[in-house]
Amino acid sequence: MTTSSDQQHREAALTDTVLRSFESCTDPRLKLVLQSLVQHLHDFIRDVRLTEDEWRTAIDFLTEAGHITDDKRQEFILLSDVLGASMQTIAVNNEAFKDATESTVWGPFFVDGSPEIPLGGDMTLGAAGEPCWVEGSITDTDGNPVPDALVEVWEADENGRYDVQYRDGRTAARAHLRTGDDGGYRFWAVTPTPYPIPHDGPVGALLAAVGRSPMRAAHLHFLVRAAGYRELVTHIFVEGDELLADDAVFGVKASLVKQFERARGATPDGRELDGRSWSRVRFDIVLAPHGS
Amino acid sequence: MTTSSDQQHREAALTDTVLRSFESCTDPRLKLVLQSLVQHLHDFIRDVRLTEDEWRTAIDFLTEAGHITDDKRQEFILLSDVLGASMQTIAVNNEAFKDATESTVWGPFFVDGSPEIPLGGDMTLGAAGEPCWVEGSITDTDGNPVPDALVEVWEADENGRYDVQYRDGRTAARAHLRTGDDGGYRFWAVTPTPYPIPHDGPVGALLAAVGRSPMRAAHLHFLVRAAGYRELVTHIFVEGDELLADDAVFGVKASLVKQFERARGATPDGRELDGRSWSRVRFDIVLAPHGS
Repeated sequence: MTTSSDQQHREAALTDTVLRSFESCTDPRLKLVLQSLVQHLHDFIRDVRLTEDEWRTAIDFLTEAGHITDDKRQEFILLSDVLGASMQTIAVNNEAFKDATESTVWGPFFVDGSPEIPLGGDMTLGAAGEPCWVEGSITDTDGNPVPDALVEVWEADENGRYDVQYRDGRTAARAHLRTGDDGGYRFWAVTPTPYPIPHDGPVGALLAAVGRSPMRAAHLHFLVRAAGYRELVTHIFVEGDELLADDAVFGVKASLVKQFERARGATPDGRELDGRSWSRVRFDIVLAPHGS
Repeated sequence: MTTSSDQQHREAALTDTVLRSFESCTDPRLKLVLQSLVQHLHDFIRDVRLTEDEWRTAIDFLTEAGHITDDKRQEFILLSDVLGASMQTIAVNNEAFKDATESTVWGPFFVDGSPEIPLGGDMTLGAAGEPCWVEGSITDTDGNPVPDALVEVWEADENGRYDVQYRDGRTAARAHLRTGDDGGYRFWAVTPTPYPIPHDGPVGALLAAVGRSPMRAAHLHFLVRAAGYRELVTHIFVEGDELLADDAVFGVKASLVKQFERARGATPDGRELDGRSWSRVRFDIVLAPHGS
């Protein structure tokens, strides 16, 4: 499509008028962010020659996303996730530092105030699934242990659902613990199961319209906080999972794919599993220094 | 801020991965629009180095906008309006054609199914305000009259509120009529009053944070539809209004500013106003051909 130079001038002049409306903003960062947002939003509209029907569809989409969102369901985070905006935000905020563990998406299912468990405790709190022994160490980039680090872990059960998705008030498959003096941690979880992101809302409809799958590669969430270190939000993924190359939210990084071994015999802590199968995985975490 | 080339590469590679996820979309237009959206969204995040706190603020903002939006309140349209996205969409869809009347924003207060009034009828339906006689002709760009064109008009009352904002079910200051055989139209309205866009929600908070006023220049909305012509969505503004240069939604165009004359003496249709002051305005509308 060709656009006359007069028309191009009118469109650019409108963008300039909008940019100027932020000139008296006294917060320089807010001004910068909003002016850039306006520039990119207007460029998008002009590049695709957005139709008025498409604009209306976008308004309706956002409205529907707003109405399905409540304290247990966050459609705007899902939208950000499936457009890769969440991962891009994580990328610009967590630049690689030496061999520090990589970050990935936060996801919509973290809940503040998880139960505390001791080292070696069970974070499943009764969630259905195959038991999985998770252990590792937390060190700095020079290999020094990081004792007393806060480790928050959360995951879906074997039905692919987080506790909050049952909407019955249960707390399961989420907990926090602290590393020991040697920087080590260990706990019982369930072996991660692939699951779809909630796809009965507008984001699910969007994925269906473009022929994309709502499935996430199986994973276990970690949030690690320790004084003097950069906060780490990440997952570990399951080696061999067919969905690794096709994760709905672009969260997979090769360094985060771990071998979940099929295990047999006595458990590390002597727990009796009555002949049930179980798995084990090791995830050694390296924290970047604060401000790196 | 400098970003290493490795880091730049990782960020660009992520964008490419997201773009490729739309490759199997069978609707070429949807694919184009979403790929462009992803590119611009990622460019925005990278350009401003969006922080994770800022990302969370954006999610919270959209959530709040969704929750305040209902069938009478549309915060996402307000957001689009104050970012100039509505006007930019109108600009790309309504390129100038000869001397056809210019478009401006739709706004959030149009309601389907307005009452029909005859030529010369009263669209106020009891809305408070100074009576205003509005008249004009509708022609094509060659000056030929357009009979039987649908003219929808709506406006705020002298308190700066639309009927739907009272939330008591009233219908006032909105109606539709049809042009006569000569393409002429005329009706009683109220003299437009400046008013703030609804600013008790997140969009109002955004405007306050950047030091922008929520006020709209006084205006009267028109929607004109006639077979064979491009639909026209526009307003007329009031010459001399101090807000013309500072309209919250960037809707003012010089060609749409009209002289609302202070009128005296007998009204055009003999209506008795019992000594009340009234105004009159002429707005001749020129329609562009369909597909122009």
